[in-house]
Amino acid sequence: MAFQGKKLISDPNDVVTEFIEGLVETYPGLQFLDGFPQVKVVLRADVSSATYNKVAVISGGGSGHEPAHAGFVGEGMLTAAICGDVFASPPVDSILAGIRAVTGPMGCLLIVTNYTGDRLNFGLAAEQAKSEGYKVEIVIVGDDCALPPPRGIAGRRGLAGTILVNKIAGAAAAAGLSLADVAAEAKRASEMVGTMGVALSVCTLPGQVTSDRLGPGKMELGLGIHGEPGAAVADLQPVDVVVSHVLKQILSTETNYVPITRGNRVVLMINGLGATPVMELMIAAGKAVPNLQLEHGLAVERVYTGSFMTSLDMAGFSISIMKADEVILKHLDATTKAPHWPVGVDGNRPPAKIPVPMPPSHSMKSDESLGRPLQLSQQGHVLEVTIEAAAEAVVNLRDRLNEWDSKVGDGDCGSTMYRGATAILEDKKKYYPLNDAAETVNEIGASIRRVMGGTSGILYHIFCKAAYAKLKASSKSGITSKQWAEALEASIAAVSKYGGATAGYRTMLDALIPAAAVLQERLSAGIDPSTAFILSSEAAIAGAESTKHMQAQAGRSTYISPEILASVPDPGAMAAAAWYRAAALAVKDMYQAS
Amino acid sequence: MAFQGKKLISDPNDVVTEFIEGLVETYPGLQFLDGFPQVKVVLRADVSSATYNKVAVISGGGSGHEPAHAGFVGEGMLTAAICGDVFASPPVDSILAGIRAVTGPMGCLLIVTNYTGDRLNFGLAAEQAKSEGYKVEIVIVGDDCALPPPRGIAGRRGLAGTILVNKIAGAAAAAGLSLADVAAEAKRASEMVGTMGVALSVCTLPGQVTSDRLGPGKMELGLGIHGEPGAAVADLQPVDVVVSHVLKQILSTETNYVPITRGNRVVLMINGLGATPVMELMIAAGKAVPNLQLEHGLAVERVYTGSFMTSLDMAGFSISIMKADEVILKHLDATTKAPHWPVGVDGNRPPAKIPVPMPPSHSMKSDESLGRPLQLSQQGHVLEVTIEAAAEAVVNLRDRLNEWDSKVGDGDCGSTMYRGATAILEDKKKYYPLNDAAETVNEIGASIRRVMGGTSGILYHIFCKAAYAKLKASSKSGITSKQWAEALEASIAAVSKYGGATAGYRTMLDALIPAAAVLQERLSAGIDPSTAFILSSEAAIAGAESTKHMQAQAGRSTYISPEILASVPDPGAMAAAAWYRAAALAVKDMYQAS
Repeated sequence: MAFQGKKLISDPNDVVTEFIEGLVETYPGLQFLDGFPQVKVVLRADVSSATYNKVAVISGGGSGHEPAHAGFVGEGMLTAAICGDVFASPPVDSILAGIRAVTGPMGCLLIVTNYTGDRLNFGLAAEQAKSEGYKVEIVIVGDDCALPPPRGIAGRRGLAGTILVNKIAGAAAAAGLSLADVAAEAKRASEMVGTMGVALSVCTLPGQVTSDRLGPGKMELGLGIHGEPGAAVADLQPVDVVVSHVLKQILSTETNYVPITRGNRVVLMINGLGATPVMELMIAAGKAVPNLQLEHGLAVERVYTGSFMTSLDMAGFSISIMKADEVILKHLDATTKAPHWPVGVDGNRPPAKIPVPMPPSHSMKSDESLGRPLQLSQQGHVLEVTIEAAAEAVVNLRDRLNEWDSKVGDGDCGSTMYRGATAILEDKKKYYPLNDAAETVNEIGASIRRVMGGTSGILYHIFCKAAYAKLKASSKSGITSKQWAEALEASIAAVSKYGGATAGYRTMLDALIPAAAVLQERLSAGIDPSTAFILSSEAAIAGAESTKHMQAQAGRSTYISPEILASVPDPGAMAAAAWYRAAALAVKDMYQAS
Repeated sequence: MAFQGKKLISDPNDVVTEFIEGLVETYPGLQFLDGFPQVKVVLRADVSSATYNKVAVISGGGSGHEPAHAGFVGEGMLTAAICGDVFASPPVDSILAGIRAVTGPMGCLLIVTNYTGDRLNFGLAAEQAKSEGYKVEIVIVGDDCALPPPRGIAGRRGLAGTILVNKIAGAAAAAGLSLADVAAEAKRASEMVGTMGVALSVCTLPGQVTSDRLGPGKMELGLGIHGEPGAAVADLQPVDVVVSHVLKQILSTETNYVPITRGNRVVLMINGLGATPVMELMIAAGKAVPNLQLEHGLAVERVYTGSFMTSLDMAGFSISIMKADEVILKHLDATTKAPHWPVGVDGNRPPAKIPVPMPPSHSMKSDESLGRPLQLSQQGHVLEVTIEAAAEAVVNLRDRLNEWDSKVGDGDCGSTMYRGATAILEDKKKYYPLNDAAETVNEIGASIRRVMGGTSGILYHIFCKAAYAKLKASSKSGITSKQWAEALEASIAAVSKYGGATAGYRTMLDALIPAAAVLQERLSAGIDPSTAFILSSEAAIAGAESTKHMQAQAGRSTYISPEILASVPDPGAMAAAAWYRAAALAVKDMYQAS
């Protein structure tokens, strides 16, 4: 069976030219030769063959492997990339145009993946260029380690290791080396690298149907980059098992594909095949490094993780290992302007992890603010009674809150608030440092956080935390009514900011905002604080009741008809008004009693 | 229906911590806090809160959007990234740990995507940090343009535009600005950007089944980054239509989501959603730029194309447009060590394309080497007779070559070679400048290329081209037998190098290699050149016959049993021996006759 793969393209015949057009729109350092559709060559905008005094480094091949190779054109890496049609070698004239466009008196190096078409077309172009007087060398890369040691002409396929060879050659050329020396370094690098891939899907060629030869739960090991069938199909395994298998095969001493032995230094490339998210590539990198260190006794000097040489939209990755020495590392680390060469991969390697920092010492609680004091101050006593009254009010309102909420929400507002209120009543007996109002408010937040889930829990926690930050600045011994009022303002501001609601949104703020306004106003007018508190609590009740006439702006209530909403106040607002009212009454009682 | 998506991971519960481990293996400039699994914080390895003298810029949110945000940690961008579980907001303690780890006396800015969970958790952490004495500001980004203008709490979702805001804030902080100023620039940037996505597939959560709600041939417009259903499902369209639709919606003057009007400068981000190949992203970029310029009258100052804020393995992309001014461009262009911020995207924009270069003038043919000369020189005459004889030999051998090839190959060797030989005979009459041997050999290659497809065609073209390059260096008036022998050696070397075969591989080289060896040897021994040619042609025949005893190393012959192979010589080798032998006999005849 097969299916039509989906792609966001226009005409399947234009994908390569349109890719190039988008590439140069993205990267102003790149240009292309005006020879579409036959000539598809991307080159450095700052290089002209007439004046270029370094060895030009040219790579290329069939398209469908983006960003390879066009994304690696830039100072310090490729001078030009020759793009064939999808999975088809570029024609000789296109290669020749690229050579002519960037090759100066120092000559050019062609780096070619080992496929017959690429070898022949690049080979013919090289010979033609030589006959035109250009100095040309060619290095063929065959880094595949999936198949048994080759016999005959075809040899090992060129895979993602080519990207490393391109970087090394590009750096050598940028350093001013001669063509012979650049070619020699590229050849040496090509002999140091081995690659093997694993895929979870087959790629879709533009405009064609996709094979689903890989069934559910299967993966393919040792595939090529053109969707060629892999060396083996296996059941999908955890990634550490897959990575271990692939590394063992690349480093096998039987096939001896790469001259790497225990104690060597290596670089690692985890290369996504096109449709593999960064998350999965990084997970593979995290598995490969310790495996190379512990199982194979190798020092991993650099890790390159990303999608460098893809196979259209194939899911999976390849792993490349290259033996590293000072020269190779120097070339890999050399700066380049090639846009898709990874950055930030060299430099000193500090410890991977550091301890989670402790809270700053000034925010640590002092002894006196730990737990319930033996002796309550007057303010401590008032605070305790007020907290008790407020919590009891919520406890008593549980069923009505649930009833309202069952009409406009989840039906659990009362139960959730009840959990918070009972936790406060319980914790207060042991843990609240009642003589320290700020710390007590903070502890109330902690009690709520412990038992109240959902948005309301975290909003009340934010409410307490904002008040705490405000009150902390005040004197411990006594908090003025004005400071309490400011703390309430800060709490409301924080809940509004992080919760996104404001007045009229049918939330607890519709009780608290009018309450805070009246409180500030009455206190400024010089009224007795406990009376101001009572007056403001009346505003809270009125505000909560007024929610009946408000449209819901969030949550399930937005789906409820206006008629039903009009019969029910917002339970969150009613809860807030209830505890606020109870607190005000308690304060009033105590100050009247005293 | 739903299906089990395939992923290369180990335990679905560990994907975020294992991603972070791989990330810091890849980028030595990054570290993480040692608080797995609750605390998942990636931070700059070179920053310590104790000594950091700039504003810390912190972003984060649910994971599954890699490289966001951890891949953008680095000097000049984020100071730390807080990673939640997949698509889940990070817990408050984890955010707080990140704040404590990197925030110095200049304070920190939290940049948060507009989701309730992120707002509340980052909000609570901010309030807690303030109560600990930290200076904290928070900017919430909601850049989504897919849904109708919002009403209520939820507001616009945060999408890929957040990456641009992070970069601008990071650059402002790196420039030494105060917390208030950094926050102000981030807020301003967040109000300038709009984003909308289009998807071809739904994402797969690790360890969960995937919905296939998007049927074949369908795409989803205006989706969120957590696999939320899009605003509309539509038939898949060509990418230019899709891009045009998305841009129109972002820039709609009805919703007025972004304050962008005709004549403005903008930056463009094409953001892959996880499983979209670079090719398709670049194609979209190539469509978006001219659309913005021509349809919307905007100046596109920068283009960022890549996968920045993904949705696990979703196929598709989002487009973000940000209004740009000098300050925003300065911050976007400022250098950063954040590994996933794109490089090479700024700088002068030269013409996108330049003309295909002409061949160098010294390789252009002179008049005298164009076409058949009116009068043949002696060498010209010899060359013509020799070419005729060689080509006739191939013509005569057609049926036998086909017969041999039908046993070991495609059965078309004779027909293919026949096409080449008849083209040579025809072209010779008009186009070969026979008095110039080098150019004539080059023209033979051109004749072959014109009519002979496949590997043999290009290999013979390479053969001629290599000889041409060698002969060109010789005098035009007369080519010595030694020079001819060297040209043959060069041709054989090129065919071997690019074709991959050598002696014993059952190819034409098994005729030509022994011939060249005998020719060189006899000439060095001082023997008469035409006799040396005859002797070497006997070696060619013997070599071709010896292919019967060789294993095939390439092509269809590798599948043929040794018994059958032993009864048939390689047709390519026999063809080479035949034309070589005929040429030698022709030369001998002429020199004997003269």
